[in-house]
Amino acid sequence: MPPLDSYLSLCQRQREIQLLGTTASLLNWDQETFLPPSAAPYRAEQLAALSSLTHRMATSEEVQRLLEESEAIGFPNDSVEFSNVRQIRRNFDRAMKIPNDLVEEFARICSHGHHAWVAARQKSDFSLFAPHLSKILEFTRRKAEYWGYPDHPYDALLEGYEPGMTTREVRLVLEGLAPQQSNLLSAISNHQATQAIPTISGHFPENAQRQFNQEVAAAFGFDFQAGRIDATAHPFCTTLGPRDVRLTTRYDLTDFTQSLYSVLHEAGHGLYEQGLPVENFGLPSGESVSLGIHESQSRLWENKIGRTRAFWDHWLPRAQELFPDARSLTPESITASVLRVKPSFIRVEADEVSYDLHIALRFELELALVEGSLPVEEVPSAWNARFHSLFGLTVPDDARGCLQDIHWSMGGIGYFSTYTLGNLNSAQLFEAALASSPTIGSDLANGQYASILNWMRTNIHQHGQRWSAPELIERATGQRTQNTAHLRYLESKYLSA
Amino acid sequence: MPPLDSYLSLCQRQREIQLLGTTASLLNWDQETFLPPSAAPYRAEQLAALSSLTHRMATSEEVQRLLEESEAIGFPNDSVEFSNVRQIRRNFDRAMKIPNDLVEEFARICSHGHHAWVAARQKSDFSLFAPHLSKILEFTRRKAEYWGYPDHPYDALLEGYEPGMTTREVRLVLEGLAPQQSNLLSAISNHQATQAIPTISGHFPENAQRQFNQEVAAAFGFDFQAGRIDATAHPFCTTLGPRDVRLTTRYDLTDFTQSLYSVLHEAGHGLYEQGLPVENFGLPSGESVSLGIHESQSRLWENKIGRTRAFWDHWLPRAQELFPDARSLTPESITASVLRVKPSFIRVEADEVSYDLHIALRFELELALVEGSLPVEEVPSAWNARFHSLFGLTVPDDARGCLQDIHWSMGGIGYFSTYTLGNLNSAQLFEAALASSPTIGSDLANGQYASILNWMRTNIHQHGQRWSAPELIERATGQRTQNTAHLRYLESKYLSA
Repeated sequence: MPPLDSYLSLCQRQREIQLLGTTASLLNWDQETFLPPSAAPYRAEQLAALSSLTHRMATSEEVQRLLEESEAIGFPNDSVEFSNVRQIRRNFDRAMKIPNDLVEEFARICSHGHHAWVAARQKSDFSLFAPHLSKILEFTRRKAEYWGYPDHPYDALLEGYEPGMTTREVRLVLEGLAPQQSNLLSAISNHQATQAIPTISGHFPENAQRQFNQEVAAAFGFDFQAGRIDATAHPFCTTLGPRDVRLTTRYDLTDFTQSLYSVLHEAGHGLYEQGLPVENFGLPSGESVSLGIHESQSRLWENKIGRTRAFWDHWLPRAQELFPDARSLTPESITASVLRVKPSFIRVEADEVSYDLHIALRFELELALVEGSLPVEEVPSAWNARFHSLFGLTVPDDARGCLQDIHWSMGGIGYFSTYTLGNLNSAQLFEAALASSPTIGSDLANGQYASILNWMRTNIHQHGQRWSAPELIERATGQRTQNTAHLRYLESKYLSA
Repeated sequence: MPPLDSYLSLCQRQREIQLLGTTASLLNWDQETFLPPSAAPYRAEQLAALSSLTHRMATSEEVQRLLEESEAIGFPNDSVEFSNVRQIRRNFDRAMKIPNDLVEEFARICSHGHHAWVAARQKSDFSLFAPHLSKILEFTRRKAEYWGYPDHPYDALLEGYEPGMTTREVRLVLEGLAPQQSNLLSAISNHQATQAIPTISGHFPENAQRQFNQEVAAAFGFDFQAGRIDATAHPFCTTLGPRDVRLTTRYDLTDFTQSLYSVLHEAGHGLYEQGLPVENFGLPSGESVSLGIHESQSRLWENKIGRTRAFWDHWLPRAQELFPDARSLTPESITASVLRVKPSFIRVEADEVSYDLHIALRFELELALVEGSLPVEEVPSAWNARFHSLFGLTVPDDARGCLQDIHWSMGGIGYFSTYTLGNLNSAQLFEAALASSPTIGSDLANGQYASILNWMRTNIHQHGQRWSAPELIERATGQRTQNTAHLRYLESKYLSA
């Protein structure tokens, strides 16, 4: 086979694997949206069958051979072909390094762990989950050893979510952020305590919420010919094909901004997915590069664009047409309401000023757990102590403390830090975009979103996995991920008024 | 491997294939319900990938070996195991007899044929579809030769939809039915011309229609923990798992009975699917036996139960709670309205008296086309002439004539007759059920559906593919499919009032 044919066949295999991968995503999407309750066990079997099939295809001897032949071609370092081969190799090696029986055993442990976590959270009793978390940690450490790492076992875990990032770098950025953000939180809380902040109340029918959310997302640039929004308990974004991006949200009939900001967040993810090069779908060059970049996009549209006075100057009149109960609001009052900063126990309900403190806490605990310096049974006390030092609040129970998140129960150790990386990247990209073109700022003030979207398309979306996330951010903003732009953004947004 | 293990492994393989088969069904269901428009081409690729995978698995050498070993076990003729092996062999042989390249070529021809049919129907110009139909017929005849048949090439086609039925038997039953039904149609039309039949009108909101349909379907016994109803352009029922049966309907906001009767029809299919033995899901003993049996269940709940005065005596009060615009109706007037008989050009809009005449026409033409005695280009004139003789109406154009149905364009030659077999089986089963137990009739009059459902569960649903459809009907009713019960049913229902 001539060398280039090997590369083309390798790409063909990747696309075939992706056809099944996106089919599994549909099984998952349907599970969250429409699956009848009694159908859950069979759905798990369907998902397991697809997962085993794609794993077998992705680690086949044929793929290995085509990969070796493609590497031997010697594509230029800066070519798309080079980056595709590099990323396929990386994924192949990561998949091959873990023995199959460990993969299966880990899946079983996480499945039990997840059920135990659900029960433990319900009873707010960490001890029910502790033995499962111990096992999950033990296997996570073993996986890290199989994968290997330059410096810290956590590097190997991070690589699964934020390829190219190191524990050392994340630690530096996050540990520098926490004390400053803690101070900022106090200052902003004090500042807001002097202001009268209204609360949104009334009845906001679901149909009207759907309509409003859809109009805003469409104005942002989300293509509804190639996507849709449905209702789920927990909002998410998933891609079922190159022109099939599904967002979900949940509706609070007493406050239409809840579903709105979920949609703006998920639409940010969706705009990234819709901005990836369609012709490369199924190849690394057509896929998102990391969670920290993905979250930069969702946070941008949710917070930098949606949670602003400019947004409400433009959109409140339309909201008032759709919602009679929004007619007493002013752009000023609704903005104040959605910018309310109030430390609370639950991460997913946190405002953007306190959010990263929730992450700092989890990141510290995860590191200590992986290193073994924190025994599992001490998680609740460590959590509560650290929470008090960061927020000045006493955690009332485990359900509102160390049991609130699903991540550990599903084996997702190493995931949390990407939320803060997303916030930092978001602020850094937004600053760079505004600096690059004077029209972006004025466009946003006029409810025009094409220029900011085009900037993201050009600097982030179109590149897929051509560069690693740290390199991509450096190319787009001139420096690697820092915490400075984020702090500047929060300070000017929340302390200038 | 001990012999029984071969059989158990064979069953295991069948269940694994079914996991992918039902996943393909989800891809199809989503395509009809929620797929964004631009996502259609990729969805076709996903479906093709799944179909090729399942075909490869179903025709693997391993399956062949396990099948041979299972046949050598010598299960008793009346055992479930025997019927499972028999049916797996039948499906395996049918799949193996057609060369792979013919399968692929036929899929391509039908795909082009389908697109041509859509355009031809839009322009009401049969000549645009004719060359495609010629090709489809040529390949259909070749497939029939590969499959082989006892007597007539049409036998081989029928076997795909109504296994165990012969062309000779269908012809006998259908050709005997047409003249009697044609006479009945005239008599009933004349009878109804003397009556004032009201028309349903008003505004019936979709939410209220959904609620009403769901309550009726639940009362019939449809399990919404293991199923659901969504909206599509064309109603259907599909099974995505042993406890996951999805119905669809469409809503006419000016007449709530349109979506209702679609739901009752599809719920009839769904009750059959939900009545199949869950523990055998993926095996022939857990699958429906034929289209003509399936349609007997949908027609039973739609027409024998739903389209009656007893139904409206029970359900009209609830409808009137949900629909203010139904408050002027009486049980008598709404029953008269849904029993209106009026010959028309379109099969899917036909009442139950004229429906089978539409089928008789198609069956005759299909036979002549397969035999080659009717040239493709003469289809429109043959259609229109026969239509006139059956209905006394002049077909105004091909769109309302020979281009109205999708079936031929998708290669579904041999399918139509199962609709009439369904009607005949339905009447025959209903008569047998009523005769078997005096309580079924009075239960129906009181809006109690458990006894008729239990009769169908016992006599039809639970048997899966244990016996062929003709044998199943004979066991349940004492005779093979006849047209007599159907004629008795129509006459007493439409001429007694």
